[in-house]
Amino acid sequence: MSNTRIERDSMGELRVPESALYGAQTQRAVDNFPISHQRMPAQFIRALILAKGAAALANVELKQISAAQGEAIVEATQILLTGDFMEHFPVDIFQTGSGTSSNMNANEVIATLATRLLGEPVNPNDHVNCGQSSNDIIPTTIHVSAALGLHEQLLPALSHLVQVIERKAIEVHAYVKTGRTHLMDAMPVRMSQVLNGWAQQLKANIEHLHNLQPALQALAQGGTAVGTGINAHPQFAALFSQQLSELTGVAFTPGKDLFALIGSQDTAVAVSGQLKATAVSLMKIANDLRWMNSGPLAGLGEIELEALQPGSSIMPGKVNPVIPEATAMVAAQVIGNDAAITVAGQSGNFELNVMLPVIAHNLLSSIELMANSSRLLADKAIASFKVNEAKLKEALSRNPILVTALNPIIGYQKAAEIAKTAYQQGRPVIDVALEYTDLSRSQLEVLLDPEKLTAGGV
Amino acid sequence: MSNTRIERDSMGELRVPESALYGAQTQRAVDNFPISHQRMPAQFIRALILAKGAAALANVELKQISAAQGEAIVEATQILLTGDFMEHFPVDIFQTGSGTSSNMNANEVIATLATRLLGEPVNPNDHVNCGQSSNDIIPTTIHVSAALGLHEQLLPALSHLVQVIERKAIEVHAYVKTGRTHLMDAMPVRMSQVLNGWAQQLKANIEHLHNLQPALQALAQGGTAVGTGINAHPQFAALFSQQLSELTGVAFTPGKDLFALIGSQDTAVAVSGQLKATAVSLMKIANDLRWMNSGPLAGLGEIELEALQPGSSIMPGKVNPVIPEATAMVAAQVIGNDAAITVAGQSGNFELNVMLPVIAHNLLSSIELMANSSRLLADKAIASFKVNEAKLKEALSRNPILVTALNPIIGYQKAAEIAKTAYQQGRPVIDVALEYTDLSRSQLEVLLDPEKLTAGGV
Amino acid sequence: MSNTRIERDSMGELRVPESALYGAQTQRAVDNFPISHQRMPAQFIRALILAKGAAALANVELKQISAAQGEAIVEATQILLTGDFMEHFPVDIFQTGSGTSSNMNANEVIATLATRLLGEPVNPNDHVNCGQSSNDIIPTTIHVSAALGLHEQLLPALSHLVQVIERKAIEVHAYVKTGRTHLMDAMPVRMSQVLNGWAQQLKANIEHLHNLQPALQALAQGGTAVGTGINAHPQFAALFSQQLSELTGVAFTPGKDLFALIGSQDTAVAVSGQLKATAVSLMKIANDLRWMNSGPLAGLGEIELEALQPGSSIMPGKVNPVIPEATAMVAAQVIGNDAAITVAGQSGNFELNVMLPVIAHNLLSSIELMANSSRLLADKAIASFKVNEAKLKEALSRNPILVTALNPIIGYQKAAEIAKTAYQQGRPVIDVALEYTDLSRSQLEVLLDPEKLTAGGV
Amino acid sequence: MSNTRIERDSMGELRVPESALYGAQTQRAVDNFPISHQRMPAQFIRALILAKGAAALANVELKQISAAQGEAIVEATQILLTGDFMEHFPVDIFQTGSGTSSNMNANEVIATLATRLLGEPVNPNDHVNCGQSSNDIIPTTIHVSAALGLHEQLLPALSHLVQVIERKAIEVHAYVKTGRTHLMDAMPVRMSQVLNGWAQQLKANIEHLHNLQPALQALAQGGTAVGTGINAHPQFAALFSQQLSELTGVAFTPGKDLFALIGSQDTAVAVSGQLKATAVSLMKIANDLRWMNSGPLAGLGEIELEALQPGSSIMPGKVNPVIPEATAMVAAQVIGNDAAITVAGQSGNFELNVMLPVIAHNLLSSIELMANSSRLLADKAIASFKVNEAKLKEALSRNPILVTALNPIIGYQKAAEIAKTAYQQGRPVIDVALEYTDLSRSQLEVLLDPEKLTAGGV
Repeated sequence: MSNTRIERDSMGELRVPESALYGAQTQRAVDNFPISHQRMPAQFIRALILAKGAAALANVELKQISAAQGEAIVEATQILLTGDFMEHFPVDIFQTGSGTSSNMNANEVIATLATRLLGEPVNPNDHVNCGQSSNDIIPTTIHVSAALGLHEQLLPALSHLVQVIERKAIEVHAYVKTGRTHLMDAMPVRMSQVLNGWAQQLKANIEHLHNLQPALQALAQGGTAVGTGINAHPQFAALFSQQLSELTGVAFTPGKDLFALIGSQDTAVAVSGQLKATAVSLMKIANDLRWMNSGPLAGLGEIELEALQPGSSIMPGKVNPVIPEATAMVAAQVIGNDAAITVAGQSGNFELNVMLPVIAHNLLSSIELMANSSRLLADKAIASFKVNEAKLKEALSRNPILVTALNPIIGYQKAAEIAKTAYQQGRPVIDVALEYTDLSRSQLEVLLDPEKLTAGGV
Repeated sequence: MSNTRIERDSMGELRVPESALYGAQTQRAVDNFPISHQRMPAQFIRALILAKGAAALANVELKQISAAQGEAIVEATQILLTGDFMEHFPVDIFQTGSGTSSNMNANEVIATLATRLLGEPVNPNDHVNCGQSSNDIIPTTIHVSAALGLHEQLLPALSHLVQVIERKAIEVHAYVKTGRTHLMDAMPVRMSQVLNGWAQQLKANIEHLHNLQPALQALAQGGTAVGTGINAHPQFAALFSQQLSELTGVAFTPGKDLFALIGSQDTAVAVSGQLKATAVSLMKIANDLRWMNSGPLAGLGEIELEALQPGSSIMPGKVNPVIPEATAMVAAQVIGNDAAITVAGQSGNFELNVMLPVIAHNLLSSIELMANSSRLLADKAIASFKVNEAKLKEALSRNPILVTALNPIIGYQKAAEIAKTAYQQGRPVIDVALEYTDLSRSQLEVLLDPEKLTAGGV
Repeated sequence: MSNTRIERDSMGELRVPESALYGAQTQRAVDNFPISHQRMPAQFIRALILAKGAAALANVELKQISAAQGEAIVEATQILLTGDFMEHFPVDIFQTGSGTSSNMNANEVIATLATRLLGEPVNPNDHVNCGQSSNDIIPTTIHVSAALGLHEQLLPALSHLVQVIERKAIEVHAYVKTGRTHLMDAMPVRMSQVLNGWAQQLKANIEHLHNLQPALQALAQGGTAVGTGINAHPQFAALFSQQLSELTGVAFTPGKDLFALIGSQDTAVAVSGQLKATAVSLMKIANDLRWMNSGPLAGLGEIELEALQPGSSIMPGKVNPVIPEATAMVAAQVIGNDAAITVAGQSGNFELNVMLPVIAHNLLSSIELMANSSRLLADKAIASFKVNEAKLKEALSRNPILVTALNPIIGYQKAAEIAKTAYQQGRPVIDVALEYTDLSRSQLEVLLDPEKLTAGGV
Repeated sequence: MSNTRIERDSMGELRVPESALYGAQTQRAVDNFPISHQRMPAQFIRALILAKGAAALANVELKQISAAQGEAIVEATQILLTGDFMEHFPVDIFQTGSGTSSNMNANEVIATLATRLLGEPVNPNDHVNCGQSSNDIIPTTIHVSAALGLHEQLLPALSHLVQVIERKAIEVHAYVKTGRTHLMDAMPVRMSQVLNGWAQQLKANIEHLHNLQPALQALAQGGTAVGTGINAHPQFAALFSQQLSELTGVAFTPGKDLFALIGSQDTAVAVSGQLKATAVSLMKIANDLRWMNSGPLAGLGEIELEALQPGSSIMPGKVNPVIPEATAMVAAQVIGNDAAITVAGQSGNFELNVMLPVIAHNLLSSIELMANSSRLLADKAIASFKVNEAKLKEALSRNPILVTALNPIIGYQKAAEIAKTAYQQGRPVIDVALEYTDLSRSQLEVLLDPEKLTAGGV
C-alpha cells in the first residue's frame, strides 16, 4: 500500500490506498478489526450489491433520489457483479455486530463508481444507503444470500444427489445383502432398498428446506434503524422486494413484522438447524458407504468405491474412501457452524441482533460446503461404486437370523432355539430347522430364501 | 423387593418382584442398566401403550391374532392408560440403543394383564408384539409421543403465549420507549411494536413446527426388523396408522420409506433443530423482559414484573425476574438436548439408529419444558407487568439520535454534527438543530416527536 | 396434600403441607415453577446440607450464632444426611437462576428441624443462612457436589475401567489382528496394543480432570451477595472451607477472587468441557467394541461380547452389544449436557451468573452417567469378551498391505505394484513379492510375519 | 493455468501447472476436493514443514537417508519457512480424513526443492516421508501447530489482556458502582473489583490451558501407519522430538502411547473444550462492557468506550461498542468450532481418526481468533474507556438494597420492610431506617456508606 489518498467521514480524516474504491469508513473497519483476516463471503457481498441495486431502483420510483443518481448506482452495481472486485471488500468477518462496516463498504464502493459514472457526487449515506439502515439491509442480505445459496447451489446439488442415488438403486437392485441392526446380522435387504432409504432421507431434508424458503425470502428491508421504517418511504419495502425478485429470479417479499426480522435472527437459526439435520443425513450416508467399502479383506467388503488417489504415504496400494470422508468432515463443520449460529442467534437485545456477520459467514459456509460435497458424493462415490456380489452371497446364506421368518409358524421361543443351535454348531439354519420343526426342506427353502425375505410380509 | 417369582425368556430363568406386571426381559434390563436411575418418560410409555393397542386392533382385523386376544390386549392398554403404572416401567433411559428393553417391558406388562383378563396365555412376543419389531415400534413411538407432545402441549402453549403477548401489546400500545441497537440509544419504538415483534417470532416458530408435523406423524410401523416388513401383514402399516389416529385424534400415516425411518432419526433431528430455534426465540424474549425490568433504579427500569417470591436470602426487599430466568434456563436445556439429539442422530449404521431412547428422552424433555415455561412466561410475567411511564419519557426526550429524522432534509453529515453537539453539551437536540439548520422550532417539534417517529416513513 | 398449615415470609402468608419440613419460600417456588417436575439432584442437596453444616460450625467459632443454635443446625444437617428426605426438597430444577429457592428450601428445612431440636426458634435467614447469600452458597454447592462426584464417583470408576482394560490387554496379548485406518485394511496390531491405547485415552482424561480439581475445590463462599463479602465475617471463608474439608475428606479452599466465582461459572464450563472430552473417548472405545463384535458372520466378528439379554423382540437368537450402546448414549447425553452448560455459562451479567440450577443439573448428570456406565463397560463388556482367533488369523494372512514392510528395501513405488497385483489376482502377497523382487521366500516370511510387524521398526 | 507438465504417482500420470512445486498427488487432491476453496491454515503448513525438517535431521542421524539428502531437505524447509509459498499448498481443508493429501503436498514440494538443491532425485515418499506416515505426521502437526499457537499467540495475548485489565483496575479503583445480581440493583462494588474479577477469570483459563500444554506437546510421531512404528527406526520418535524442540524453542516429547495419539484426537478435543471455556469468559467480559457502556442516556451509561468508527449508516452521531461485539462474535465462533471438533473427535475407528484436517482448521481458527481479539479488547476497549462518575453516584445513593448491611443488627425481616417502604415511597433508605430502627442517622450513615460496603464484612 504505497500510495494513499485522504478520505473523511463524520469522525474526521484518514488515509486510504490510492487505488481503493472504498472510503473512510471501510478503512476504519480494516484498521479496527485485524482479527481473522477472512473477509465476508463473496456470496454475501454479491447479495448486498444486488440489494443496493434494487434499493436504487425503488428509490428512483419513489423519487427519493434522482433518476440519474439511480441509474449511476445501478450501473455501478452491475459493474461490481460482473467482475471480481473482492479486493475492494476487505472488511473482516469479525467486525461490528450489525455489519455496518460491510454496509458502508458497499455504500462507499458503489458511491465511488457511481460518482465516476455520473460525473457528480453520489453520497454513500444519502444516496446509496437512501431509505436503508445497516439494521435492515444486513439482515436482508443474510436472507437474500442464503436464499440464493439454497436456490442456486444446495437444493440443486441435493436433488442431483437424490437422482444419482435413485439411478444407482435401479442398477444394484438385483443384489441382496445381510441387513444389520446394532451392527449385528439381521434380516436381508436389497441393495436398492438401502439406497432408496438414503434418497428418501435427502428428499425429506429437501422438503424441510423448501418449507423454510418463504421465511427466508421474507425480508427485513423497510424497517431501517429499529423496525419502524423511519426515513424509508412507506412503499419502499414492497418495491424493493419486487425489484430484487426481478434481478434475481427468486420471489422475495416484505417481511410480516420488521421488528422480529431485525431484533432476531430466528430464520437463520431455523434454516441452520435444518442444514444441520441435512448434515446428519449426509453423515449417515457417508458412514454407510465407508463401512460397506471397508476391507477389502478384513472389513465388510460389500462394495468397492472408485479409486481416486493413493491412500497412504506409507502403505502402498491402499485406497481410501476419501469422498465419503470429506463429506463426513463437511457434516462435522456444518454442525459446528450451527452451534455458532445458535449462540449468535441468542445475541439480540431489544431492536437488533448484533452477531450478523458471524451468522452470515457460518450460514453461507454450510450451504456452500454441502452443495459442493453432495455433488462429489454423487459423482465420485455413489455413481461409480462396484458391488462385491460374492462377498454378499457368502454372508447371506450362513445367517441364522433368517429363522425370524419362521416366527409366525413356530413362535419366537422355538425360533430362538434354532438360531442359537445353528450359530453354536456352525450349521446352516435350514438343517437345524429341519430337526426342530415339522417343515420340509422344500418348504424351508422357500420360507428362508433371502431374496424373497426382502419383500417382507408374513 | 422382598418377594419374588421366577420368570423365563429365551436366555433362561431369573427372579422378578412378586408384584411386578413385567417379566424376564424387563428384569434383565433393570439389572443390566443401573446408569441414570431415570426411567423412560411417561409420555413415551403412554405412546407405546397406545401403539400396542392400535397394533392389536390391526392384527385382529388382519387375523394375525384372535379377536379374544386382541380384545384382551386392548383392554390391558386401556387399564394402563387410565392409571399410574409407571412403577411397572422401570427400564433406564440408558439401555439398549434400540429401546428393545422398553418394547419388551410394554409387551410383558400388557401380556400379563391380557392373560389375566383372557384367562389364557397371551404371549409378549407372538401376540402383543405381533407384526412388530422394536426396530419399528420404538421409532414409531418416538414420532407418536413427540407428535402428541406438539399437538397437546407445546403448540397450544406457544399459541397461548402469542395471545397473551398480543393482548398485552394492545394494553401497552400508548407507551413509546427509546429503541436500542447495539444496546445504544436509537430511534423510538412503541412498546406494542416490541411485543408484536415477539409474537411474530413465536408465530414463525409455530409455523415451522407445524410444517414438520406431517413428517413427525409419518410412522416407521410396518417396517419391522430392517424396513422390509418381514413378519408384518402388508396391510398392517395402513391399518395401524388408522387405528392410532382414531385412538389419539391425531392423523398418523404410514411412512413413505420405512428404511429411512428405521435407519435414521432424521425427523427427530429436524424437529429438535426447530425446537432449538424456538428456544432461541424464547431466550430473546426472556432477556428483553429481564433487561426492561432491570433496576429498578440503577437499571433500565422500563417495566416492573410481578413479584412472585422474595428475591434474595440476604438482600431484603429484592425482587428478581424469576420466570424469565427459568424460561432462559429452559432454553439452555433445549439447546443442550438438541446437541445430544444431533450426536444421537449420527449414530445410525445401516438398518438401525441405535440411540433411540436418548433421542426420545431429550426430544420429549424439550417439548415439555418449553410448553410449561411458555405458559408461565405468559401468565406470570407478560400478562402482569407494569410499565414505568415516567422512566420511558425521561429517556425519550433527551435522545440526540432523534436527529436521524432530519437526514432526508439536511443530510447524514450535518445531522451527525447536531447529534454530537447535543450529546457533548448535554442540550436538547431541538435546541441544537435550531442553530444548525433553517428549520423552525415548530417544524422541529413535529419532525422530532418520538411518538410520530414510531410510525416510520420519510 | 390434604392438611396444610400457614407459613409466612417477607411477602406474606401462604399454606404449606402439614407434614412439610419446609416453609413459605419453598412453597412459593413449588407454586411458581411447575416446569420439569424434576427436582434438584440428590447429590446437590447433599452438598448443600454439608455446606450448611460447615457454615454453622464456622459461624459458632466466629460468634455469629450461638453455640446452641450451631449445634442444633449441625444436628439437623446430620439427620438430613443420614436419611432420605428428598420429599422435603421439592423445588424444580427450572427455578430462579440463582438457586435462591433451593437455598431457602435448605434453610427452611434445617431451621424447622433445628428449632425442634433446640426448642426455640432458629431462623432460616438469620441463623441457618448466617454469613451467606444464595449467590455464594449455590456456586459453592455446585463446586462441592461436582468435586465430590469426581472424587467419589467418576474418577474411581474411570480408574476401575482403566484397570480392567489393562488386565484384559494382558489376557489378549497373544492375539494379532489386522489394523484399520480409514476402515481399510492396514498393518497388523496386537489386540493388547488396541486395549492399551484405550487405557491411555482414559488415563489422559483422568489426568486432565485431576488438574481441574483444585479449581473445582476453590469456593465462592465468603463472597455473599456480590463478591464483596458483605455480612460475612472476614474469616468466614477460611473457616468454612476448613470445616467442609473435615466433613467431606476433600480439601476445599477459599477462592482467590470471589467476584469471578460468583459472576461466572467458568470452572463448571471448564470441567464440563473436560467431561465432554472424556465422553468422546468413551464413544471411541464403545464404537471400537461394537465394530469388533459386529457380525457374528457378516461383520468383523473379531470378538464376542457377553450375552446379557435377548437382542430383539422379533429376530430370535440375536444378541446385541447393549453395554457399549448404553455407553455411547451416555456420551451423547454428556455432549448435550455440555452444550447446555456452555449456554448457561454465558448467562452471567455483572455480579451473578443466573443459570446456576441448570448448570448443577447438567454437570452432576454428566458425572453420574459416566461413572455408572464406565463401571458397566468394564465389568459387563470388556472383562468378559472372547476373541475369535480364527477370524483374526484368516484376515491377517491375506492382507496385501503387509507389503509396507518392504518399503525400506524396495521403495514405495514397487511395493505399491506388488500390493495391487496381489489384491487384483487374489494371491498371497508373498507369492507376488517373490516375482517382483530378489527376496527369497524365507526372507519374505520373516519380513512379512504379522506378529513381528506389530513390534514396528525398520 | 496455461502451461502444464506431466507428473506421475503410483496411480499413473496427470498434468500439473508448470510452475507448481508440487506433484501428482497434490494435483489429484486439488481435482478431487473442490469443496470449500479454503486451504489448510498457514500455521498448519508451517508446522508441517518444521516437522519435515526435524524428521530429516533425525533420519540422517539414524542413517535412514544420506547426509546430503537430509541437508537438501532441511534447506528446502528453511526456504519454505522464510517465504510465502502458500500457493504451492493448494489442498482444500475438506479432503481425505487423514490429511494424506496435505502430507504428500508437503512431501512433494520439499522433494522438488531438495532435488533442485541436491541435483539428484529426492523422493517424496522414500526420503522426505522417511520413517513417517500421514497417520503420525498429521496428528503430530495438529499438536505442533496448536502448541505453537498457544505459545506464540494465544497465551501472550491473554496475558496482555490480563495486564491491561489489572492496570485499568488500579486506574478506576476509586469508583464505586451499584452491583447487580439478576440484573437487579444489589449491594455496591468497586469498579476495580469488577475488573479484577475479569482478570481472574482469564488467569484461570490461562492456567487450565497451561495444564494442557504437556499433552499437546506430546507427539504421535514414531507410530507411523497404525501406532506400531512400522518402518520407523526405534529411536526416531525421540530424536524427532528433540530436533523439533530445537527448531521451535518449545519442548516437544514423544507420546506415551502412540495408538491413542493416532486412533483418537482426544487432546485436540480437550484443548478445544478449554478454548471454548475461555470464549465463554470473554463473552462475559464483552457483555459486561457492552452493558456498562449502554445508553448513553437510556442505558446504564456507567462507562464510555473509545469511539472507533461511526456506528450507524442511518443514525448520525451513534457510536457502538464494536470491539466487545467483535469479541463476542469470536466467542460464538469458537463455541461453534468446538462443536465441530467434538463431532470430529468421535470419528475415529480402530487405528485412525479420519477428521484430522477439519480438526486442525477449527482448532487453529479458535486460537488465532481469540489471540487477535483479546489484544483488541485490551488495547481498543479496556485500556481507554472512561468512567461516568456522576451516573454511578446518582444510582448508588438511591439504592434501598443497601439495607442489607443492617441484617446482622435488625434481622432480615425488618430490613425487608425498610427496603420495600423506601422503594414504594421513593425515599432514601436512611430516612426510612431512622423510623423503623433505633439507629441514629450518624450510625446509619456509617453503616450504609456504599464505599465502606464494598469492603465486605459483618
